[in-house]
Order: sequence, then structure tokens, then C-alpha cells
Amino acid sequence: MYRTHTCGELRLANIGQEITLSGWVQTNRDLGAMAFIDLRDRYGITQLVFSPEINDELYQQSRKLGREFVISVSGLVRERSSKNLNRSTGEIEIEVQKLTVLNSSKLPPFTIEDETDGGDDIRMKYRYLDLRRSPIKNNMIFRSNLAIETRKYLAAQQFVEVETPFLIKSTPEGARDFVVPSRMNPGQFYALPQSPQTFKQLLMVAGLDRYFQIVKCFRDEDLRADRQPEFTQIDCEMAFITRDQILETFEGLTKYLFKTVLDTELPDFPRMSYDEALRRFGSDKPDLRFGMEFCELTDLAKGKDFVVFDSAELVVGICAEGQANYTRKQLDELTEWVKRPQIGAKGLVYMRYNEDGTLKSSVDKFFGEEDLKAWAAKTGAKPGDLILILAGEEEKTRKQLNELRLEMGRRMGLMKPGDFKPLWVIDFPLLEWDEDAQRFFAMHHPFTSPKKDDIPRMLDGDHQTLKNLRADAYDLVINGSEIGGGSIRIHDRALQEKNFKLLGFTPEQAENQFGFLMGAFEYGAPPHGGIAFGFDRLCAVMSGQSSIRDFIAFPKNNQGRDVMIDAPAEIDGGQLEELFLEVKKAE
Amino acid sequence: MYRTHTCGELRLANIGQEITLSGWVQTNRDLGAMAFIDLRDRYGITQLVFSPEINDELYQQSRKLGREFVISVSGLVRERSSKNLNRSTGEIEIEVQKLTVLNSSKLPPFTIEDETDGGDDIRMKYRYLDLRRSPIKNNMIFRSNLAIETRKYLAAQQFVEVETPFLIKSTPEGARDFVVPSRMNPGQFYALPQSPQTFKQLLMVAGLDRYFQIVKCFRDEDLRADRQPEFTQIDCEMAFITRDQILETFEGLTKYLFKTVLDTELPDFPRMSYDEALRRFGSDKPDLRFGMEFCELTDLAKGKDFVVFDSAELVVGICAEGQANYTRKQLDELTEWVKRPQIGAKGLVYMRYNEDGTLKSSVDKFFGEEDLKAWAAKTGAKPGDLILILAGEEEKTRKQLNELRLEMGRRMGLMKPGDFKPLWVIDFPLLEWDEDAQRFFAMHHPFTSPKKDDIPRMLDGDHQTLKNLRADAYDLVINGSEIGGGSIRIHDRALQEKNFKLLGFTPEQAENQFGFLMGAFEYGAPPHGGIAFGFDRLCAVMSGQSSIRDFIAFPKNNQGRDVMIDAPAEIDGGQLEELFLEVKKAE
Repeated sequence: MYRTHTCGELRLANIGQEITLSGWVQTNRDLGAMAFIDLRDRYGITQLVFSPEINDELYQQSRKLGREFVISVSGLVRERSSKNLNRSTGEIEIEVQKLTVLNSSKLPPFTIEDETDGGDDIRMKYRYLDLRRSPIKNNMIFRSNLAIETRKYLAAQQFVEVETPFLIKSTPEGARDFVVPSRMNPGQFYALPQSPQTFKQLLMVAGLDRYFQIVKCFRDEDLRADRQPEFTQIDCEMAFITRDQILETFEGLTKYLFKTVLDTELPDFPRMSYDEALRRFGSDKPDLRFGMEFCELTDLAKGKDFVVFDSAELVVGICAEGQANYTRKQLDELTEWVKRPQIGAKGLVYMRYNEDGTLKSSVDKFFGEEDLKAWAAKTGAKPGDLILILAGEEEKTRKQLNELRLEMGRRMGLMKPGDFKPLWVIDFPLLEWDEDAQRFFAMHHPFTSPKKDDIPRMLDGDHQTLKNLRADAYDLVINGSEIGGGSIRIHDRALQEKNFKLLGFTPEQAENQFGFLMGAFEYGAPPHGGIAFGFDRLCAVMSGQSSIRDFIAFPKNNQGRDVMIDAPAEIDGGQLEELFLEVKKAE
Repeated sequence: MYRTHTCGELRLANIGQEITLSGWVQTNRDLGAMAFIDLRDRYGITQLVFSPEINDELYQQSRKLGREFVISVSGLVRERSSKNLNRSTGEIEIEVQKLTVLNSSKLPPFTIEDETDGGDDIRMKYRYLDLRRSPIKNNMIFRSNLAIETRKYLAAQQFVEVETPFLIKSTPEGARDFVVPSRMNPGQFYALPQSPQTFKQLLMVAGLDRYFQIVKCFRDEDLRADRQPEFTQIDCEMAFITRDQILETFEGLTKYLFKTVLDTELPDFPRMSYDEALRRFGSDKPDLRFGMEFCELTDLAKGKDFVVFDSAELVVGICAEGQANYTRKQLDELTEWVKRPQIGAKGLVYMRYNEDGTLKSSVDKFFGEEDLKAWAAKTGAKPGDLILILAGEEEKTRKQLNELRLEMGRRMGLMKPGDFKPLWVIDFPLLEWDEDAQRFFAMHHPFTSPKKDDIPRMLDGDHQTLKNLRADAYDLVINGSEIGGGSIRIHDRALQEKNFKLLGFTPEQAENQFGFLMGAFEYGAPPHGGIAFGFDRLCAVMSGQSSIRDFIAFPKNNQGRDVMIDAPAEIDGGQLEELFLEVKKAE
């Protein structure tokens, strides 16, 4: 028996009890007449006392215990003379009567503290030590609780958790697949699923009615900062269902999770069309924790010989409340910020609405006081406000101003921790035109249904009509992060074939890749739809953290490597042989 | 809105209500003056009534509805004149006032009935139709419930569910890995985990204390009848724990699952050593639903000039109660059965203890009545019993008699459905000698700790001593199926190194493959141990079914193929190119 209690458990009520604890040496302070060890386990920290007066041999042994040694101690719970009320066990300590060293420890390469001195790389290499730190450990427990509560809610709503296969078929549409060579079928490959999309649709054809799964998905993409090659989804699908019923169900789930895990009541989620989101915020995932909405100034800005505005498709600004005191230097720095390649704006026009009522812009050469007053009126600026304006090609300019709006939100402290602003974005476009490939791609995926009213126009639409087709697709956005997305699916073979055709599939390609699904549609496929939440992202957003990596026990770095186990790695020649594969030398 | 109720919901209390249902046409019986459609969804079946008198147009439409058409109907709930009390909705029917055909269906390739006319292959190809059948559908729901209850129990015991990575490193020890080429690291491969073993141990080093996961695992093995390349484990690990605490925890889980899901109370699980299990039943997973224990007859059998016995290492028999009436023909057939290559016995000796007290054996030439009486006494046979005896090399003979015992159990109806006999098998050997490879393999896996008392003998043991080393390993067996297995792990670097050495690893190989784990052992690894349950198998055993395949939504066939989606398949040349791979022509 290694312990009778955990290190987070003992209280005044336990005084006088003989107990046994096991854990790690967090600190070891030898005061000469006495030594104190803070013993840590997952549940907390308990103070141990050794003294040469009580037991000199034990005291001498205790002095040899280094940080992170694993020990088991038995002793008496006693009241502390100087209590630490910041710690749940801070009113008691253990007078140690027996000590067993269960394992020693080398000096850890970084401190096991909430604020550690270890950099990213070293913490990833020794992830098992990083996980001992409370912030990361608590993230793991948070994630586990969130999964439990998700399942509880969905099970109560009659969802069945069904495991879909991981060894499936590669489909070139969408992101790049990880593939798995098949030894038993030489020259053939499985693919790891980017999502269980087709399988969950087949489960609806199968009549399972309500499916969910918390499931790993895989994408072999060039990794951006906060992407992982393997990630987790809460994946759901429902049959005989309308869009609004799906939104209500998953709004219910989200509210339930916030309530049970964070004790936070969320109000009903507003809904906003994709077009409106772009118009008002320049983004299909607007952060609604603050306003600072877009104001189009194109009409007011043109015809004043300012060539930047005159040649622009769009002139659009935001009003940063109370920021008229931005100095010239700050504004220059902000201009440089929007001109960085990541943002890509050509420049930034500003107008200060000074507290004294005067107006001052960076384009006074072209715009008089009346013009600036009109800008102020249109943007709703008040004395003390700062107007920031970008101009150029419409789509790009909106994206740039979205970045600037978010940056101003950050600088102005408008993204308050603990403030959660969920939003349904609806009515996404069905198709997205790719200039490079000169073809349409599915904005959501090829199985998304167009909105009912738009179906006739799918058949005979010209380019612009096709661009304007709306999908019955929706995203859940919280605080500017896309938490989930889904759609009503096509359940009719003919319509699915048309959609593949619009996406540039030949009938043979469509049949070869998705024939099994289209075949299933011929045997009584019910109307259905669903949604998937990014579980890693949901954890991070709910915790008010920016990186998903800290919610993943063993994440990979930006090169897709697990630096702890050193994977991927070369494999045995024999293994390649069995798979009928040869590695070509990289040029 | 596709429905106000499900097809399993309406009762007498709903009579007079206007309702809407959606589902599949199970049957369509047109009686001329009236047509009845059984409408099916996941929740049940409801009878719809159409009649030319009420609405001729609807009646005419209803006649066109084929099996598995998907329809939505609105109408009035009314009492049935001829009730079907075998069906939960059998007291009511729906007088249909509105009919919408949501989708048509081709004639399904097999009947969607509990007893279907479809063979295995066709049902796998159209798995989405097979899943509509109640037995398979109910298996999916059973599995989902079992997972929910498993999580509920473990979460209440402070277990944290942690997701371990799927893209890990290949380790040649054990079964064959599926590998995943890395595009970003040319020539290098990930492997899919055969189990999260090393990661869960690292989580214990990380101080997570109690971990679990219901997780997919992968093995690229030549598939036997009831194996799948991907399968699911309930995977657990605990720190600061003794073997008995682990057994109690997971005995608790098992009892809880049987109680909540099957409403079955299991008694405390007996424990039996590996040696005892082999001696008494010839198997490390004995089916305890019946006795028919092994009785060693070597001493009695030798020295009577019967060369088969005289040359045998072991002569061992079982007593089949009340089977003395086996005819000569039946006994010949049984002899052929044990001689099949799958069993491999050279022959079968039998002795009938007839009801009249006479004894009759197949070896009367060599053994007189006194001899046979001695056999009867030793095996405890009574008049009416049949003794079956095998002889030969010890290990093989025990295995063969185990098969025969199970076959007799089946024939005698001793494996009663609903009868559950769990058992802990403990004290497995640490090492297994492989004659072909002329080396030891780990019986459980290389991370299993020897029993404490056996550790000194690991260091200087000769071959026989090493063969006799006991591991702190255990299996949970129910009704002869291995449900789970686990062990106390090594948590000391030096001991782990010794174990790798016994298993024939060079220090470099050990470091290259498992250096990250042995490194972790140097930073305060706590004592720990764990267990994994085969989830697919648990589902099957609890349901009294023999095949795990019927508990997997989309299983693979014996060639590792998913015949529904036709995977694995060839991939694009461009994909291979990106992975720096070339497929060699199979010779």
C-alpha cells in the first residue's frame, strides 16, 4: 500500500491520524533544527516535517532527497504552527515516522513550477515533466471533464457514439491525406480520415438517427503555428432534421458545457449571415466581444483627387473609441503593422477626432473639414475617437481591416478574459472560385446541400450565379474562433452528382471516389445534417488560452515531429520490403 | 419539421393527436379496401393506415411505396382494432392525412429483417443496410452504452481520459506495425500504435496518477477469423498502486458494467495462477461455466505395453458426465475431430463407464478392468460417464485436451447463455522461449515487471530459471475469452535495461527504440501498473455473441479490406511522389 491519502486531501479533521502519502519532492528546505519537504502529487501538496530531535536518522535521510525524488512517507498528521491558507492542506503537516525512497530523480532540465524557466523546445522534449506542471496538468483534466460532459449531454439526447474506421480510402478532394501502405494488398494504401464525414452520413442512411463521436482526425498539411497533424473533433450527425433543430441542439450543448464546466451562463446565440459578417467585420468569424464595426466610406472618399481612394474598389474604416490620443509615432507604427506581409495593406489613413472637436487626418491635403466631418458622422465617431481607414480591392481590404480591428481590440483591452460571445454564422456560399486552379471548390465540403431555393439555379447558372449560390452551412464562432461547422447534407444521388460536376469531377472520378456514398443514397437515404466541433480549440477558447498545443498531451512541433519519442523515424529495410516500397533519395 | 414523434413512441394515451412521423417503409400490405404500411425508424415500428374511403389520392400514392422508401406522414393517432401486443406501439395506428416521399429506394439486395437472407459478403458491401437490421443496430447501441458506463465509472474513480497520439514511432518488438510515411520528413515514417503502452507509462511519470482512454489500436497481422486490423481498447494505468488494488478496481468496473448494462450481479472473481489454469484446464483462459477438469493419468497409464501411453510425456483425461451413451460412431467422429490439423492430436482414447457398472475402453487390449477402475476412481467418474484421454508431449497435449474439453462443453450444452464466469489469471511467466528464433520473448510485453521475489534471479539465472521467472501480470477471463490483461510495470531504468537484455536487445537497440521511456525513468518515475480491456471482445462476450465483427460499425474482412468503400486502394502518382516513395512490382 503506497498511500492511505493523496497529497491534496488532509485537513484539520485528520489531526492525530497515522497516514501514508506518496509523491514527488517539490521543495526541500533544511533549516538545521528542522527540515520541511513539500510533497506533491496530482491532487495537491502536503508539507512533511523531519527533525533531528524526533528522529535523527530520518532527518539525515531527508536531507539527501532532491527535487522530483519519488518517496512514500508514513507519519502523524499535526496542526501547523504557521498556516498557509492559500493551500487546501495548509493547516496541517506530517510528522514523518517512516520514509521510503521509491525512485530517485536527476535534476530536471527546467523547474516544475507554474511559471517555469524552460523554453518551448526543452519542455516538448521532456513533455512528461512539463505535464507535471499545474497549468498543463489542469488543462488535461479540463479536457477530460469537457469530454465527459459532452458525452453526458449527447447521450441524454439519444445520440449513439459509433466508432468509425481509421483505415479508409484516400480522396484527393480537400486537404492532403496521410496514407498507410497495405502489406496484404501490395501497392495499395489506406488513408487516415480527415474526418468521419462519409461514414457518419452512411450511419444516417443506416438509420442510426443521431450519431456522435469524439474522434481523432488527420491532415497532412504544412503546419501553421497552431495546427496539429492529428486533432480531435466532436463529430455529430442527425437525420430527419432541420437546420434550426441542429443549431438548437448544439447551442444547447455549448451552453451546457459552459454552465457545467465553467459555471458560466451563455445567452441565446445570435445568428448572422456570412455576407453580413463580412460586411460588418470583414471576417466569417467575427469576435463580438467588442463592436468597432466596419463603416464603408467609399462614396465619401472618392472624387477628391486622392488616387489611393479614387482607384480603390472599397474604402472602409473603423472607429477606435477614445484613441484620438494616439501619437504620430504610434500611428506610424500601426501603419507599419498593417503593411507587414502577413497583413499586406499598402498604407493606413487615419483621422483623429480630437477632444477639442478639431479633426486631423493623414490626408488633410485632399480632404477638408467638411469631408472629415462627414466621415465622423458616418462612422459615428465622437470627440476623442480615432478613425482608421483602409482602401483597395474589396475582399483583401476587408480582410486587412479585420486584422486591424482585432489588433486594436487587443491593444485597447477589449478581449476580456471570461467574456464569451458566441455567434452562429449561417448561409455560407456553396462554392469558392479558385483563380489558380480555375475551378470551383466546395467552401464547406462536397456533401453540403445548397439552400433549397438555390437548387434550381445550380443547374443552369452562369459563373456569377454559381458564385452566389448559398449553402445550408453554418459555423459556430466564439470570441472570433471557429469552434465548429456543419451543414445540411445532400441526400439525393442526382443532386450529389450535379455538385461533383460543378466541382470539376468527371462522372468516373466521382464514382471512383464516392460511389459507395452515392450508391447508398439510392437505398432510402433520409434527409440529414450535422456538425463537428474542434475539440482542441473548444478547450483553448473556454480556458481563455490561445494555443491548442497546451491541451494536447503529446503534441507535435511545426515540422510534424514528436521530439520526445523522436518520430517520425526511419524504419527497417525489412518493413519496407514487406510493403513493396522503396524510398527515393530526396534531390 | 420532419416529425413530432419517433416510430417507437406513440401509445394509447396519444389517441386523437395530430402527429408527424418519418421513417422507412418496412412492409406495405394492400388489402384493397385498406393499405397498411409498417413505418420503421431507429426507435420502433408504427402502423400507418391508408384507405380509399378516407382519401383515395393518398391511398393510390401509398400503393407506390416500395420497401425502404423514406417517407414522412402526418395524421391522426387512433386505436387499432386488432392489437399487436408484441410491439410497443401495437395498440395504435396512424390514419394518414398527408404523405411526403423524402427519398425512394431501390430494392435492397437482402431483406432488412432480424433474420436476413443476405450472406456475409453482400451484407458487408451494403453495411449501411445491414446496420438497419435490429440485431446489428442494437449491437451499436449496446456498445455506445457500454462506453458511456465505462467512462462514468472510471471518471467517478478519478481517472482522467487523456488522448495519446496516433502518429508515433515504429517498434519492431511485438506484432507488425502499420506505418505512415511522413511527407515533411522524407524517408521517415510514423507508426500507428499497437497500444498506447509507452505513452500511458509516461503519463504516470508525468504524475497524472490515473489515466484511461477508450482508444483505437492497430496491428498489421495476418487476420484470423475474428481479428480486425483496427480494434478498440479500454486502456488504463495507475500510479502508486499494488496489483491487488488494480484487480479490485477493474473487477469493480466489470461488475458495474454487468449490473448497469445487463442487470446481472457478478460474484467476486476467483483468482488462479497461470500454472494452475494450465494444469486444471490446459488453458490460460479457462471457461469456468463448467467443470470437466483435467485429470492426469500418466502414472496409471504407463507400463502396460501400450506404446502410445508409454512414450507419452503426459497422459491426461476429462470426464464427460452422463455421456457413456456415446455411440461408437460418435466416438469415431470425435476421434476424427481431435485429429484435425487445427487440433493435431494423434488419437483419442475413451472409456465408457456404463450405467450397469461395466467399463469399456478403446484400449481394452492393454488395460484390464482393474486398470479402468483405477482410471474411473482417479477421474471421479460415475456410472453413465465417459472418459476421454489424450497423450503425448505435455504442452501440446494440454492444448489439445483444452480444445476437446471446450468442444464437449459445447456439445453438452454447458455454455449457457446468460451465465457469466469471470476469473483472474495471475502470475504469468515473464519470458517465453521461442524455439525458432532461439531467444526469449516477453510473454506480456517488455515493460512488465517480474514479481519482486524473482528479480534477483533475473540477473544470474540459467535458462530454466529464466523460463520460470514470474511476471506481475494478470488477465481477466470471462467464459473462456480473454477480456483484458495487464501488469505492474518496471519503473526503474536499470531493471528495464536488464529486461531488454534478456529479450535480446543490444543496448543501442534498446536506447534507439525506448530511450525516451528509460530516460523518463530517471526523472522520478513512480511505481505504476495498468490494464487494457479488449472493448470489442467485451461487447461480444457480454452479449453472448461469438463474433466481434457484429459490434464494429464498419469492419474489415479477412484480407483487411473494407469492401463497402473498397479500401485500401491505389493512390495517385503525385501522392507517392510527395512522399518520396516508389511501389515495387510484386514478384
